[in-house]
Amino acid sequence: MSRFSVLTSRDNPQLKHAAKLAASSRSRKEDGLFVVEGVRLCMDALRSGLSVVSLFYTPAAKERYPEAVGELSAAAGEIYETAPAAFSKISDTATPQGVLCLCGIPPRAAVEELDAAGRYLLLEQISDPANLGTMARTAEALGLSGLVLSPGCCDPYSPKSLRAGMGALFRLPLYLTRDFPEALNCLREKGIQLYAALPRQDARKITELHFGPGCAVAVGNEGNGLTEDTISRCQPVTIPMGGRAESLNAAAAAAILMWEMLRENQG
Amino acid sequence: MSRFSVLTSRDNPQLKHAAKLAASSRSRKEDGLFVVEGVRLCMDALRSGLSVVSLFYTPAAKERYPEAVGELSAAAGEIYETAPAAFSKISDTATPQGVLCLCGIPPRAAVEELDAAGRYLLLEQISDPANLGTMARTAEALGLSGLVLSPGCCDPYSPKSLRAGMGALFRLPLYLTRDFPEALNCLREKGIQLYAALPRQDARKITELHFGPGCAVAVGNEGNGLTEDTISRCQPVTIPMGGRAESLNAAAAAAILMWEMLRENQG
Repeated sequence: MSRFSVLTSRDNPQLKHAAKLAASSRSRKEDGLFVVEGVRLCMDALRSGLSVVSLFYTPAAKERYPEAVGELSAAAGEIYETAPAAFSKISDTATPQGVLCLCGIPPRAAVEELDAAGRYLLLEQISDPANLGTMARTAEALGLSGLVLSPGCCDPYSPKSLRAGMGALFRLPLYLTRDFPEALNCLREKGIQLYAALPRQDARKITELHFGPGCAVAVGNEGNGLTEDTISRCQPVTIPMGGRAESLNAAAAAAILMWEMLRENQG
Repeated sequence: MSRFSVLTSRDNPQLKHAAKLAASSRSRKEDGLFVVEGVRLCMDALRSGLSVVSLFYTPAAKERYPEAVGELSAAAGEIYETAPAAFSKISDTATPQGVLCLCGIPPRAAVEELDAAGRYLLLEQISDPANLGTMARTAEALGLSGLVLSPGCCDPYSPKSLRAGMGALFRLPLYLTRDFPEALNCLREKGIQLYAALPRQDARKITELHFGPGCAVAVGNEGNGLTEDTISRCQPVTIPMGGRAESLNAAAAAAILMWEMLRENQG
Protein backbone atom coordinates (compact mmCIF):
# COMPACT_ATOMS: atom_id res chain seq x y z
CA MET A 1 0.00 0.00 0.00
CA SER A 2 1.45 3.35 -1.06
CA ARG A 3 1.46 6.47 1.08
CA PHE A 4 0.14 9.56 -0.72
CA SER A 5 0.94 13.18 0.19
CA VAL A 6 0.61 16.59 -1.41
CA LEU A 7 3.70 18.83 -1.27
CA THR A 8 3.44 22.55 -1.80
CA SER A 9 6.43 24.04 0.01
CA ARG A 10 9.98 24.04 -1.31
CA ASP A 11 11.09 23.55 2.29
CA ASN A 12 9.43 20.17 2.59
CA PRO A 13 11.88 17.61 4.04
CA GLN A 14 11.10 15.03 1.33
CA LEU A 15 12.06 17.55 -1.36
CA LYS A 16 15.19 18.50 0.53
CA HIS A 17 16.15 14.85 0.74
CA ALA A 18 15.63 14.30 -3.00
CA ALA A 19 17.63 17.44 -3.84
CA LYS A 20 20.47 16.23 -1.65
CA LEU A 21 20.45 12.82 -3.36
CA ALA A 22 20.58 14.54 -6.77
CA ALA A 23 23.52 16.69 -5.73
CA SER A 24 25.68 14.39 -3.64
CA SER A 25 27.28 11.08 -4.47
CA ARG A 26 28.05 10.55 -0.79
CA SER A 27 24.37 10.95 0.16
CA ARG A 28 23.42 8.44 -2.52
CA LYS A 29 25.89 5.92 -1.15
CA GLU A 30 24.82 6.51 2.46
CA ASP A 31 21.12 6.13 1.71
CA GLY A 32 21.39 3.56 -1.08
CA LEU A 33 19.08 5.73 -3.17
CA PHE A 34 19.37 7.75 -6.35
CA VAL A 35 17.25 10.18 -8.36
CA VAL A 36 15.77 9.35 -11.76
CA GLU A 37 14.18 12.24 -13.64
CA GLY A 38 11.90 12.32 -16.65
CA VAL A 39 9.11 10.06 -17.86
CA ARG A 40 11.19 7.88 -20.13
CA LEU A 41 14.03 7.32 -17.69
CA CYS A 42 11.64 6.59 -14.80
CA MET A 43 9.83 4.01 -16.93
CA ASP A 44 13.20 2.53 -17.96
CA ALA A 45 14.09 2.20 -14.27
CA LEU A 46 10.77 0.53 -13.47
CA ARG A 47 11.02 -1.91 -16.40
CA SER A 48 14.62 -2.73 -15.48
CA GLY A 49 13.37 -4.05 -12.16
CA LEU A 50 14.75 -1.26 -9.96
CA SER A 51 12.80 -0.62 -6.78
CA VAL A 52 10.90 2.67 -6.99
CA VAL A 53 10.91 3.99 -3.44
CA SER A 54 9.29 7.38 -3.99
CA LEU A 55 7.52 9.12 -6.85
CA PHE A 56 7.21 12.90 -7.23
CA TYR A 57 4.97 14.32 -9.94
CA THR A 58 3.28 17.62 -10.71
CA PRO A 59 -0.49 17.75 -11.36
CA ALA A 60 0.24 18.82 -14.96
CA ALA A 61 2.49 15.77 -15.47
CA LYS A 62 -0.26 13.46 -14.20
CA GLU A 63 -2.60 14.88 -16.83
CA ARG A 64 -0.02 14.73 -19.58
CA TYR A 65 1.43 11.26 -18.84
CA PRO A 66 -1.46 9.43 -17.13
CA GLU A 67 -0.29 5.91 -17.98
CA ALA A 68 3.31 6.39 -16.87
CA VAL A 69 2.30 8.17 -13.66
CA GLY A 70 -0.25 5.38 -13.03
CA GLU A 71 2.31 2.59 -13.49
CA LEU A 72 4.91 4.39 -11.39
CA SER A 73 2.33 5.13 -8.65
CA ALA A 74 1.42 1.44 -8.49
CA ALA A 75 5.07 0.56 -7.92
CA ALA A 76 6.14 3.40 -5.60
CA GLY A 77 6.09 3.12 -1.81
CA GLU A 78 5.55 6.85 -1.36
CA ILE A 79 3.78 9.19 -3.75
CA TYR A 80 4.14 12.96 -3.64
CA GLU A 81 1.94 15.15 -5.76
CA THR A 82 4.17 18.22 -5.91
CA ALA A 83 3.40 21.84 -6.77
CA PRO A 84 5.42 23.03 -9.81
CA ALA A 85 7.33 25.68 -7.84
CA ALA A 86 8.34 23.03 -5.29
CA PHE A 87 9.17 20.47 -8.01
CA SER A 88 11.72 22.84 -9.56
CA LYS A 89 13.77 22.43 -6.37
CA ILE A 90 14.49 18.78 -7.17
CA SER A 91 14.66 19.01 -10.96
CA ASP A 92 17.97 19.08 -12.80
CA THR A 93 16.49 20.54 -16.01
CA ALA A 94 15.38 24.00 -17.06
CA THR A 95 11.96 22.81 -18.26
CA PRO A 96 11.10 19.76 -16.12
CA GLN A 97 8.58 17.18 -17.32
CA GLY A 98 7.38 16.94 -13.71
CA VAL A 99 8.09 13.26 -13.05
CA LEU A 100 10.91 12.07 -10.77
CA CYS A 101 11.58 8.92 -8.77
CA LEU A 102 13.88 7.86 -6.00
CA CYS A 103 15.14 4.36 -6.76
CA GLY A 104 17.21 1.92 -4.76
CA ILE A 105 20.82 1.46 -5.87
CA PRO A 106 21.04 -2.19 -6.93
CA PRO A 107 23.42 -4.44 -5.00
CA ARG A 108 27.04 -4.39 -6.20
CA ALA A 109 27.82 -7.13 -8.71
CA ALA A 110 31.04 -9.00 -7.88
CA VAL A 111 33.76 -9.37 -10.53
CA GLU A 112 34.00 -13.01 -9.49
CA GLU A 113 30.68 -13.48 -11.30
CA LEU A 114 31.93 -12.07 -14.61
CA ASP A 115 31.40 -14.26 -17.66
CA ALA A 116 34.78 -15.70 -18.69
CA ALA A 117 33.62 -15.62 -22.32
CA GLY A 118 32.28 -12.06 -22.12
CA ARG A 119 33.62 -8.79 -23.50
CA TYR A 120 34.12 -5.96 -21.02
CA LEU A 121 35.23 -2.37 -20.82
CA LEU A 122 37.42 -1.53 -17.83
CA LEU A 123 37.05 2.10 -16.80
CA GLU A 124 39.73 3.64 -14.63
CA GLN A 125 38.99 7.00 -13.01
CA ILE A 126 36.65 8.27 -15.73
CA SER A 127 35.74 11.70 -14.37
CA ASP A 128 33.11 13.06 -16.74
CA PRO A 129 29.63 11.66 -16.01
CA ALA A 130 28.51 12.37 -19.59
CA ASN A 131 31.39 10.21 -20.86
CA LEU A 132 30.44 7.41 -18.47
CA GLY A 133 26.79 7.54 -19.54
CA THR A 134 27.67 7.64 -23.24
CA MET A 135 30.03 4.67 -22.84
CA ALA A 136 27.25 2.66 -21.16
CA ARG A 137 24.83 3.58 -23.93
CA THR A 138 27.30 2.52 -26.63
CA ALA A 139 28.19 -0.66 -24.73
CA GLU A 140 24.57 -1.70 -24.50
CA ALA A 141 23.80 -0.91 -28.14
CA LEU A 142 26.79 -2.89 -29.43
CA GLY A 143 26.19 -5.80 -27.06
CA LEU A 144 29.07 -5.59 -24.59
CA SER A 145 28.78 -7.84 -21.53
CA GLY A 146 29.31 -5.09 -18.95
CA LEU A 147 31.43 -2.30 -17.51
CA VAL A 148 34.02 -2.70 -14.75
CA LEU A 149 34.54 0.59 -12.86
CA SER A 150 37.55 1.53 -10.75
CA PRO A 151 36.97 3.16 -7.36
CA GLY A 152 37.92 6.60 -8.72
CA CYS A 153 35.27 6.65 -11.47
CA CYS A 154 32.48 9.20 -11.27
CA ASP A 155 29.17 7.96 -9.91
CA PRO A 156 27.03 6.08 -12.47
CA TYR A 157 23.96 7.08 -10.42
CA SER A 158 24.43 10.85 -10.81
CA PRO A 159 21.76 12.73 -12.80
CA LYS A 160 24.29 13.60 -15.54
CA SER A 161 25.50 10.01 -16.00
CA LEU A 162 21.95 8.70 -16.08
CA ARG A 163 20.83 11.28 -18.62
CA ALA A 164 23.70 10.47 -21.01
CA GLY A 165 23.15 6.74 -20.42
CA MET A 166 19.56 6.81 -21.66
CA GLY A 167 18.65 3.88 -19.41
CA ALA A 168 21.68 1.76 -20.32
CA LEU A 169 23.10 2.18 -16.79
CA PHE A 170 19.99 0.40 -15.42
CA ARG A 171 20.28 -2.57 -17.76
CA LEU A 172 23.97 -3.15 -18.36
CA PRO A 173 25.87 -5.17 -15.75
CA LEU A 174 28.04 -2.72 -13.79
CA TYR A 175 30.92 -3.99 -11.68
CA LEU A 176 31.85 -1.26 -9.19
CA THR A 177 35.13 -2.45 -7.76
CA ARG A 178 36.75 -1.48 -4.46
CA ASP A 179 40.25 -2.61 -5.52
CA PHE A 180 40.95 -2.24 -9.23
CA PRO A 181 44.28 -4.12 -9.47
CA GLU A 182 42.72 -7.00 -7.56
CA ALA A 183 39.72 -6.97 -9.90
CA LEU A 184 42.07 -7.14 -12.91
CA ASN A 185 43.89 -10.07 -11.31
CA CYS A 186 40.56 -11.82 -10.86
CA LEU A 187 39.67 -11.30 -14.54
CA ARG A 188 43.07 -12.62 -15.61
CA GLU A 189 42.64 -15.71 -13.47
CA LYS A 190 39.38 -16.37 -15.26
CA GLY A 191 41.36 -16.45 -18.51
CA ILE A 192 40.06 -13.10 -19.77
CA GLN A 193 42.59 -11.30 -22.01
CA LEU A 194 43.31 -7.83 -20.64
CA TYR A 195 44.27 -4.92 -22.89
CA ALA A 196 45.22 -1.34 -22.02
CA ALA A 197 44.25 1.32 -24.57
CA LEU A 198 47.16 3.75 -24.87
CA PRO A 199 47.92 6.63 -27.25
CA ARG A 200 51.29 5.07 -28.05
CA GLN A 201 52.66 4.33 -31.49
CA ASP A 202 54.60 1.27 -30.31
CA ALA A 203 51.54 -0.46 -28.85
CA ARG A 204 49.84 -3.19 -30.88
CA LYS A 205 47.23 -1.78 -33.28
CA ILE A 206 43.66 -2.88 -32.54
CA THR A 207 43.24 -3.60 -36.24
CA GLU A 208 45.96 -6.25 -36.05
CA LEU A 209 44.43 -7.96 -33.06
CA HIS A 210 41.86 -10.71 -32.78
CA PHE A 211 39.47 -9.95 -29.93
CA GLY A 212 38.07 -13.35 -29.09
CA PRO A 213 35.49 -14.21 -26.44
CA GLY A 214 36.82 -13.40 -22.96
CA CYS A 215 38.44 -10.01 -23.46
CA ALA A 216 38.51 -6.67 -21.68
CA VAL A 217 39.94 -3.31 -22.68
CA ALA A 218 40.94 -0.67 -20.12
CA VAL A 219 40.30 3.03 -20.80
CA GLY A 220 41.78 5.65 -18.48
CA ASN A 221 41.04 9.06 -17.07
CA GLU A 222 40.28 11.84 -19.58
CA GLY A 223 43.36 13.86 -18.65
CA ASN A 224 45.83 11.41 -17.21
CA GLY A 225 45.11 8.10 -18.91
CA LEU A 226 45.66 4.75 -17.22
CA THR A 227 47.81 4.19 -14.13
CA GLU A 228 51.03 2.18 -14.31
CA ASP A 229 49.42 -0.33 -11.95
CA THR A 230 46.78 -1.07 -14.56
CA ILE A 231 49.08 -0.93 -17.60
CA SER A 232 51.40 -3.49 -16.00
CA ARG A 233 48.55 -6.02 -15.87
CA CYS A 234 47.47 -5.58 -19.51
CA GLN A 235 48.77 -5.89 -23.07
CA PRO A 236 49.16 -2.38 -24.50
CA VAL A 237 47.00 -1.69 -27.58
CA THR A 238 46.34 1.48 -29.55
CA ILE A 239 43.82 2.97 -31.95
CA PRO A 240 45.84 3.77 -35.07
CA MET A 241 45.06 7.32 -36.20
CA GLY A 242 45.75 8.78 -39.59
CA GLY A 243 45.24 12.37 -38.48
CA ARG A 244 46.90 14.62 -35.94
CA ALA A 245 48.39 12.94 -32.91
CA GLU A 246 45.68 14.46 -30.73
CA SER A 247 43.97 12.02 -28.48
CA LEU A 248 40.32 11.13 -28.92
CA ASN A 249 37.62 12.02 -26.43
CA ALA A 250 37.35 9.10 -23.97
CA ALA A 251 33.80 8.17 -25.04
CA ALA A 252 34.74 8.28 -28.75
CA ALA A 253 37.83 6.14 -28.11
CA ALA A 254 35.71 3.69 -26.10
CA ALA A 255 33.16 3.51 -28.94
CA ILE A 256 35.88 2.54 -31.43
CA LEU A 257 37.43 0.03 -28.99
CA MET A 258 34.09 -1.66 -28.24
CA TRP A 259 33.26 -1.70 -31.93
CA GLU A 260 36.51 -3.53 -32.68
CA MET A 261 35.97 -5.93 -29.75
CA LEU A 262 32.63 -6.95 -31.23
CA ARG A 263 33.16 -6.22 -34.92
CA GLU A 264 33.46 -9.84 -36.01
CA ASN A 265 30.19 -10.66 -34.28
CA GLN A 266 28.28 -7.80 -35.86
CA GLY A 267 28.63 -8.96 -39.44
CA MET B 1 50.25 48.46 -33.42
CA SER B 2 47.95 47.15 -30.70
CA ARG B 3 45.67 49.32 -28.58
CA PHE B 4 45.95 48.64 -24.87
CA SER B 5 43.28 49.40 -22.24
CA VAL B 6 42.55 48.45 -18.66
CA LEU B 7 38.99 47.34 -17.92
CA THR B 8 37.66 47.34 -14.39
CA SER B 9 33.88 47.68 -14.74
CA ARG B 10 31.54 44.86 -15.70
CA ASP B 11 29.52 47.46 -17.61
CA ASN B 12 32.33 48.18 -20.03
CA PRO B 13 31.02 48.08 -23.63
CA GLN B 14 33.88 45.79 -24.81
CA LEU B 15 32.94 43.22 -22.18
CA LYS B 16 29.27 43.51 -23.06
CA HIS B 17 30.14 42.92 -26.69
CA ALA B 18 32.23 39.82 -25.87
CA ALA B 19 29.47 38.44 -23.62
CA LYS B 20 26.95 38.93 -26.41
CA LEU B 21 29.20 37.10 -28.89
CA ALA B 22 29.57 34.21 -26.44
CA ALA B 23 25.82 33.95 -25.95
CA SER B 24 24.40 34.56 -29.41
CA SER B 25 25.01 32.77 -32.69
CA ARG B 26 23.25 35.60 -34.50
CA SER B 27 25.65 38.18 -33.03
CA ARG B 28 28.58 36.03 -34.12
CA LYS B 29 27.26 35.87 -37.66
CA GLU B 30 26.49 39.60 -37.79
CA ASP B 31 29.90 40.64 -36.51
CA GLY B 32 31.94 37.82 -38.05
CA LEU B 33 33.57 37.25 -34.66
CA PHE B 34 33.57 34.51 -32.04
CA VAL B 35 34.87 33.96 -28.53
CA VAL B 36 37.74 31.60 -27.69
CA GLU B 37 38.36 30.96 -24.00
CA GLY B 38 41.28 29.36 -22.21
CA VAL B 39 45.04 29.41 -22.78
CA ARG B 40 45.25 26.23 -24.82
CA LEU B 41 42.31 27.00 -27.08
CA CYS B 42 43.48 30.60 -27.66
CA MET B 43 46.94 29.33 -28.64
CA ASP B 44 45.32 26.72 -30.91
CA ALA B 45 43.36 29.51 -32.60
CA LEU B 46 46.50 31.62 -33.06
CA ARG B 47 48.55 28.70 -34.45
CA SER B 48 45.72 27.74 -36.80
CA GLY B 49 46.07 31.14 -38.45
CA LEU B 50 42.85 32.65 -37.17
CA SER B 51 42.91 36.44 -36.79
CA VAL B 52 42.97 37.44 -33.13
CA VAL B 53 41.00 40.68 -33.03
CA SER B 54 40.91 41.27 -29.26
CA LEU B 55 42.58 39.75 -26.23
CA PHE B 56 41.20 39.90 -22.68
CA TYR B 57 43.34 38.72 -19.81
CA THR B 58 43.44 39.13 -16.04
CA PRO B 59 46.63 40.33 -14.30
CA ALA B 60 46.90 36.91 -12.59
CA ALA B 61 46.74 35.13 -15.96
CA LYS B 62 49.52 37.33 -17.33
CA GLU B 63 51.73 36.25 -14.43
CA ARG B 64 50.78 32.61 -14.74
CA TYR B 65 50.96 32.25 -18.54
CA PRO B 66 53.48 34.97 -19.57
CA GLU B 67 54.51 33.33 -22.86
CA ALA B 68 51.00 32.67 -24.11
CA VAL B 69 49.77 36.13 -23.11
CA GLY B 70 52.86 37.59 -24.78
CA GLU B 71 52.30 35.75 -28.07
CA LEU B 72 48.59 36.55 -28.08
CA SER B 73 49.28 40.22 -27.26
CA ALA B 74 51.66 40.45 -30.20
CA ALA B 75 48.95 39.16 -32.52
CA ALA B 76 45.88 40.96 -31.12
CA GLY B 77 44.63 44.29 -32.47
CA GLU B 78 43.14 45.28 -29.11
CA ILE B 79 44.37 44.22 -25.68
CA TYR B 80 42.28 44.51 -22.53
CA GLU B 81 43.80 43.87 -19.16
CA THR B 82 40.65 43.00 -17.26
CA ALA B 83 39.89 42.92 -13.53
CA PRO B 84 38.86 39.43 -12.36
CA ALA B 85 35.33 40.51 -11.33
CA ALA B 86 34.84 42.01 -14.78
CA PHE B 87 36.37 39.00 -16.55
CA SER B 88 33.80 36.69 -14.98
CA LYS B 89 31.16 38.48 -17.06
CA ILE B 90 32.61 37.11 -20.29
CA SER B 91 33.80 33.72 -19.03
CA ASP B 92 31.81 30.55 -19.69
CA THR B 93 33.51 28.58 -16.90
CA ALA B 94 33.18 28.48 -13.12
CA THR B 95 36.92 28.92 -12.53
CA PRO B 96 38.22 30.93 -15.52
CA GLN B 97 41.90 30.80 -16.49
CA GLY B 98 41.62 34.49 -17.29
CA VAL B 99 42.52 34.41 -21.00
CA LEU B 100 39.97 35.01 -23.76
CA CYS B 101 40.15 36.14 -27.37
CA LEU B 102 37.77 37.39 -29.99
CA CYS B 103 38.68 35.82 -33.31
CA GLY B 104 37.43 36.39 -36.83
CA ILE B 105 35.17 33.67 -38.27
CA PRO B 106 37.11 32.31 -41.25
CA PRO B 107 35.53 32.67 -44.68
CA ARG B 108 33.07 29.93 -45.65
CA ALA B 109 34.68 27.09 -47.61
CA ALA B 110 32.68 26.16 -50.71
CA VAL B 111 31.67 22.52 -51.28
CA GLU B 112 32.79 22.98 -54.88
CA GLU B 113 36.34 22.91 -53.50
CA LEU B 114 35.93 19.54 -51.76
CA ASP B 115 38.52 16.91 -52.60
CA ALA B 116 36.87 14.29 -54.84
CA ALA B 117 39.14 11.65 -53.26
CA GLY B 118 38.45 12.78 -49.68
CA ARG B 119 36.38 11.24 -46.90
CA TYR B 120 33.73 13.45 -45.33
CA LEU B 121 31.08 13.43 -42.66
CA LEU B 122 27.81 15.11 -43.63
CA LEU B 123 26.02 16.52 -40.59
CA GLU B 124 22.33 17.33 -40.89
CA GLN B 125 20.75 19.40 -38.12
CA ILE B 126 23.05 18.23 -35.34
CA SER B 127 21.66 20.18 -32.40
CA ASP B 128 24.02 19.42 -29.50
CA PRO B 129 27.18 21.57 -29.64
CA ALA B 130 29.11 19.01 -27.54
CA ASN B 131 28.28 16.35 -30.15
CA LEU B 132 29.44 18.64 -32.96
CA GLY B 133 32.70 19.43 -31.15
CA THR B 134 33.36 15.77 -30.32
CA MET B 135 32.71 14.74 -33.92
CA ALA B 136 35.23 17.33 -35.14
CA ARG B 137 37.79 16.11 -32.61
CA THR B 138 37.33 12.49 -33.69
CA ALA B 139 37.39 13.46 -37.37
CA GLU B 140 40.68 15.26 -36.97
CA ALA B 141 42.29 12.49 -34.93
CA LEU B 142 41.32 9.78 -37.43
CA GLY B 143 42.27 11.86 -40.46
CA LEU B 144 38.94 12.71 -42.07
CA SER B 145 39.07 15.32 -44.83
CA GLY B 146 36.38 17.60 -43.38
CA LEU B 147 32.84 18.12 -42.15
CA VAL B 148 29.92 19.30 -44.28
CA LEU B 149 27.26 21.01 -42.15
CA SER B 150 23.61 21.53 -43.08
CA PRO B 151 22.05 24.95 -42.41
CA GLY B 152 20.18 23.61 -39.34
CA CYS B 153 23.30 22.45 -37.49
CA CYS B 154 24.26 24.18 -34.27
CA ASP B 155 26.98 26.81 -34.50
CA PRO B 156 30.53 25.39 -34.61
CA TYR B 157 31.75 28.71 -33.18
CA SER B 158 29.75 28.51 -29.93
CA PRO B 159 31.75 28.18 -26.68
CA LYS B 160 30.35 24.67 -26.07
CA SER B 161 31.24 23.37 -29.54
CA LEU B 162 34.72 24.84 -29.34
CA ARG B 163 35.38 23.37 -25.89
CA ALA B 164 34.37 19.85 -26.98
CA GLY B 165 36.31 20.28 -30.23
CA MET B 166 39.63 20.90 -28.45
CA GLY B 167 40.89 23.00 -31.35
CA ALA B 168 39.80 20.60 -34.09
CA LEU B 169 37.13 23.07 -35.28
CA PHE B 170 39.93 25.56 -36.07
CA ARG B 171 41.98 23.10 -38.10
CA LEU B 172 39.53 20.78 -39.83
CA PRO B 173 37.98 22.02 -43.09
CA LEU B 174 34.35 22.94 -42.32
CA TYR B 175 31.85 23.32 -45.15
CA LEU B 176 28.91 25.33 -43.83
CA THR B 177 26.29 24.94 -46.53
CA ARG B 178 23.31 27.17 -47.25
CA ASP B 179 21.42 24.51 -49.26
CA PHE B 180 22.11 20.95 -48.10
CA PRO B 181 20.40 19.01 -50.96
CA GLU B 182 22.28 21.16 -53.45
CA ALA B 183 25.55 20.49 -51.60
CA LEU B 184 24.87 16.73 -51.76
CA ASN B 185 24.20 17.03 -55.47
CA CYS B 186 27.50 18.83 -55.89
CA LEU B 187 29.35 16.05 -54.02
CA ARG B 188 27.67 13.40 -56.15
CA GLU B 189 28.64 15.20 -59.34
CA LYS B 190 32.24 15.08 -58.16
CA GLY B 191 31.92 11.29 -58.01
CA ILE B 192 31.85 11.10 -54.20
CA GLN B 193 29.82 8.12 -52.93
CA LEU B 194 27.11 9.30 -50.56
CA TYR B 195 25.84 7.15 -47.71
CA ALA B 196 23.08 7.81 -45.17
CA ALA B 197 23.56 6.26 -41.72
CA LEU B 198 20.20 4.87 -40.60
CA PRO B 199 19.14 2.68 -37.65
CA ARG B 200 17.48 0.25 -40.06
CA GLN B 201 18.03 -3.49 -40.22
CA ASP B 202 17.47 -3.65 -43.99
CA ALA B 203 20.17 -1.09 -44.80
CA ARG B 204 23.58 -2.31 -45.94
CA LYS B 205 25.91 -3.07 -43.03
CA ILE B 206 28.99 -0.85 -42.87
CA THR B 207 31.06 -3.98 -42.25
CA GLU B 208 30.07 -5.32 -45.67
CA LEU B 209 30.97 -2.15 -47.46
CA HIS B 210 34.21 -0.95 -48.99
CA PHE B 211 34.69 2.76 -48.28
CA GLY B 212 37.09 3.83 -50.98
CA PRO B 213 38.54 7.30 -51.53
CA GLY B 214 35.78 9.78 -52.34
CA CYS B 215 33.09 8.90 -49.82
CA ALA B 216 30.81 10.76 -47.43
CA VAL B 217 28.45 9.50 -44.72
CA ALA B 218 25.45 11.52 -43.53
CA VAL B 219 24.50 11.57 -39.84
CA GLY B 220 21.22 13.16 -38.79
CA ASN B 221 19.68 15.06 -35.91
CA GLU B 222 19.92 13.46 -32.45
CA GLY B 223 16.16 13.04 -32.11
CA ASN B 224 14.79 12.92 -35.63
CA GLY B 225 17.57 11.47 -37.75
CA LEU B 226 18.06 12.37 -41.40
CA THR B 227 15.45 14.04 -43.60
CA GLU B 228 13.87 12.19 -46.54
CA ASP B 229 15.44 14.78 -48.82
CA THR B 230 18.88 13.65 -47.72
CA ILE B 231 18.12 9.92 -47.56
CA SER B 232 16.86 9.99 -51.16
CA ARG B 233 20.28 11.22 -52.34
CA CYS B 234 22.31 8.57 -50.48
CA GLN B 235 22.75 4.80 -50.20
CA PRO B 236 21.34 3.68 -46.84
CA VAL B 237 23.90 2.06 -44.53
CA THR B 238 23.70 0.93 -40.92
CA ILE B 239 25.93 0.12 -37.95
CA PRO B 240 25.11 -3.49 -37.09
CA MET B 241 24.50 -3.80 -33.36
CA GLY B 242 24.53 -6.95 -31.33
CA GLY B 243 22.84 -5.41 -28.33
CA ARG B 244 19.50 -3.76 -27.72
CA ALA B 245 17.96 -1.95 -30.63
CA GLU B 246 18.61 1.38 -28.91
CA SER B 247 20.25 3.95 -31.08
CA LEU B 248 23.74 5.19 -30.35
CA ASN B 249 24.56 8.71 -29.28
CA ALA B 250 25.21 10.74 -32.46
CA ALA B 251 28.88 11.37 -31.64
CA ALA B 252 29.49 7.68 -30.81
CA ALA B 253 27.77 6.60 -34.04
CA ALA B 254 29.85 9.13 -35.97
CA ALA B 255 33.05 7.81 -34.34
CA ILE B 256 32.27 4.26 -35.50
CA LEU B 257 31.29 5.45 -38.99
CA MET B 258 34.45 7.53 -39.43
CA TRP B 259 36.55 4.66 -38.08
CA GLU B 260 35.08 2.31 -40.70
CA MET B 261 35.54 4.92 -43.46
CA LEU B 262 39.23 5.09 -42.67
CA ARG B 263 39.87 1.66 -41.16
CA GLU B 264 41.72 0.24 -44.14
CA ASN B 265 44.07 3.22 -44.14
CA GLN B 266 44.88 2.96 -40.43
CA GLY B 267 46.49 -0.43 -40.59
